[in-house]
Amino acid sequence: MTQPLAGYIILDLTHVLAGPFCTMTLLDLGARVIKVEKPGSGDDTRAFPPFKDGKSAYFAALNHGKASIALDLKKEEDCKTFEALLTRVDVIVENFRPGVMDKLGYGWDDLHAAFPKLIYGSVSGFGHTGPDARKPAYDMVVQARGGVMSITGEKGRDPVRVGASIGDIVAGMFLAQGILAALVDRERGAKGRKVDVSMLDSQLAILEHAVAITTVTGKPPGPSGARHPSITPFETFHASDGLFVIAAGNDKLFEKLCITLDLPISDDARFASNAARCDNARLLKRLIEAVTLEHTRAHWIAKLSAAGVPTGPIQTVAEALKDPQILARNMVVDVLDKNGRAAFKAAGNPIKLSDMTDPTTRRPAPDLDGSRGEILRWLENGRT
Amino acid sequence: MTQPLAGYIILDLTHVLAGPFCTMTLLDLGARVIKVEKPGSGDDTRAFPPFKDGKSAYFAALNHGKASIALDLKKEEDCKTFEALLTRVDVIVENFRPGVMDKLGYGWDDLHAAFPKLIYGSVSGFGHTGPDARKPAYDMVVQARGGVMSITGEKGRDPVRVGASIGDIVAGMFLAQGILAALVDRERGAKGRKVDVSMLDSQLAILEHAVAITTVTGKPPGPSGARHPSITPFETFHASDGLFVIAAGNDKLFEKLCITLDLPISDDARFASNAARCDNARLLKRLIEAVTLEHTRAHWIAKLSAAGVPTGPIQTVAEALKDPQILARNMVVDVLDKNGRAAFKAAGNPIKLSDMTDPTTRRPAPDLDGSRGEILRWLENGRT
Repeated sequence: MTQPLAGYIILDLTHVLAGPFCTMTLLDLGARVIKVEKPGSGDDTRAFPPFKDGKSAYFAALNHGKASIALDLKKEEDCKTFEALLTRVDVIVENFRPGVMDKLGYGWDDLHAAFPKLIYGSVSGFGHTGPDARKPAYDMVVQARGGVMSITGEKGRDPVRVGASIGDIVAGMFLAQGILAALVDRERGAKGRKVDVSMLDSQLAILEHAVAITTVTGKPPGPSGARHPSITPFETFHASDGLFVIAAGNDKLFEKLCITLDLPISDDARFASNAARCDNARLLKRLIEAVTLEHTRAHWIAKLSAAGVPTGPIQTVAEALKDPQILARNMVVDVLDKNGRAAFKAAGNPIKLSDMTDPTTRRPAPDLDGSRGEILRWLENGRT
Repeated sequence: MTQPLAGYIILDLTHVLAGPFCTMTLLDLGARVIKVEKPGSGDDTRAFPPFKDGKSAYFAALNHGKASIALDLKKEEDCKTFEALLTRVDVIVENFRPGVMDKLGYGWDDLHAAFPKLIYGSVSGFGHTGPDARKPAYDMVVQARGGVMSITGEKGRDPVRVGASIGDIVAGMFLAQGILAALVDRERGAKGRKVDVSMLDSQLAILEHAVAITTVTGKPPGPSGARHPSITPFETFHASDGLFVIAAGNDKLFEKLCITLDLPISDDARFASNAARCDNARLLKRLIEAVTLEHTRAHWIAKLSAAGVPTGPIQTVAEALKDPQILARNMVVDVLDKNGRAAFKAAGNPIKLSDMTDPTTRRPAPDLDGSRGEILRWLENGRT
């Protein structure tokens, strides 16, 4: 039972979300992560609520199991330690504003010349090229500018942000993928590469149907409310006691849905194909709700599930965290404190691999500079 | 200039979104992808609007550059072809309902025994284990059940879906990451692994602050509207002519914001830390808007940008596709038709790598079974 990334070491200069999320997912696959933080306050998210016993649950969820050393890369002594670390690691990851690493003398060109096998991962608001490369960004700026907000929300009302910070998270995921692709190739003999991921680019990359609709029809889609704009029926419906989801993504599922609802319309020309159903989505919604309003959500979810039609409740996060399927998949784990007690809950690792254990706990998140002694000893004494 | 995954071959049995998105991102990094489709109609998304010259722009955006062969895995002749393909590929990816591949005799156990180096990637609604493993799901079902919908939308109103299908896309991205981690390890001598990714698990994995808030406070957050619940100010603000975003993620940025707005409140105890600003978010929003309402969005975006405060417009997808920064990053590419003409626009590759070209066009999406002759010749004559 081995983790696929066991033995790899990542020097992690990132803070807040995109970078730490990236290195967390690599750590969950076996990599060792050494977090380099700014002296004094460290990663901004150490100050993000909510807190428990004075510690940020937000920070703990993203940084469990990482080592921490505080280094000021403008001080000679700290640079020496940093450079010693560079000789030992496989990957360096940073999410500074473009140009910051170059100014410190640790940009890609310098590092690649000195450490040709080193992989250099960078995530920034707008990437290392282009007119806005040096502008700062946070999640909401790229959700807004990249177009995702414009398709999220209710028709005719102001756009809303996606409740999860996908501006950061998706960029962190693309960075992880780029780092791993470079690592695959390095194992075949290639040199290290620079991976340059932009949060704004990453929003573009997930727009899906919206790019097709905009470029083919010339009209950008508006907020999609609670339905998919290219698949019908694929939305929320009212039952007698509230909303639930039906997602009948193809003709066969639509037929099953019609049979289950005792609604003989699957041969009707207006609903005979997905394209036709999209054209008549409003009418179809009313026909379906005229049936679903007669019973509860639980009634319909059970009945449609049994018939093989994709359906489900809209759950709060509290409900999701108690969902039997989610618990059966070990998707809610305990982050331990230094005494081995469960201190925080966090999301588990969604990448389930054969021949790898999927632990139910996570090692503690580090105190700021909490691994200094251990790291310095390791640098002196060779590989641990 | 080489692509890091050049030389790897993926046998891709996936359809719709999560799987095809995964293999598209691996193709963009150099892998060759052979798409196995069901005879007759092929991938469901071939029928998804919008269409241009009778072809789905949606399908083209996800399947450009892939080869296509139609195989019925219940027919002996087609199974022979399929098994010949299995001897040649590095990775197989499928997104059938759990159990389907086993019934066909091509489940993980069978394939791992016959092809120990083969990596087996699977993405499904709920994963291959747990009580709901065999239930079908689509994007909206997992957005709803996984909790993301409950935190997306306006306060006090019904939840909305995320306009992009992140239920599928995020799962496809975790699958790509798992496959690459297994590939890294295989290059070091390990056997192939099974990667089992669930769309529902993947939603849990991106909930971010919502897990921390729910488990620490006991109260799940509701729809976040247009602001981040753990960072303040980090939301949309009204200017004289509409909405724009300000995201001041730390004390330094908040101070810069206050100076730029000529609003001397950064030393006020109610706003002196992020935690305090979160507690007084409503008041702070009003103080800021009392200033921003006096000028246009463009005025404030220019002024705040110059001061280094993260800010930006809310763009439609049409505006995003013309954004100079996005174009400078080659994030809008042309998918060619068989005659080499630009047929569709699609999102580019957000993973920018050194030593790899970033082409401005993509090869055509395949016709159903359009690569049969070429694939059969390749199987007969050895590696191309």
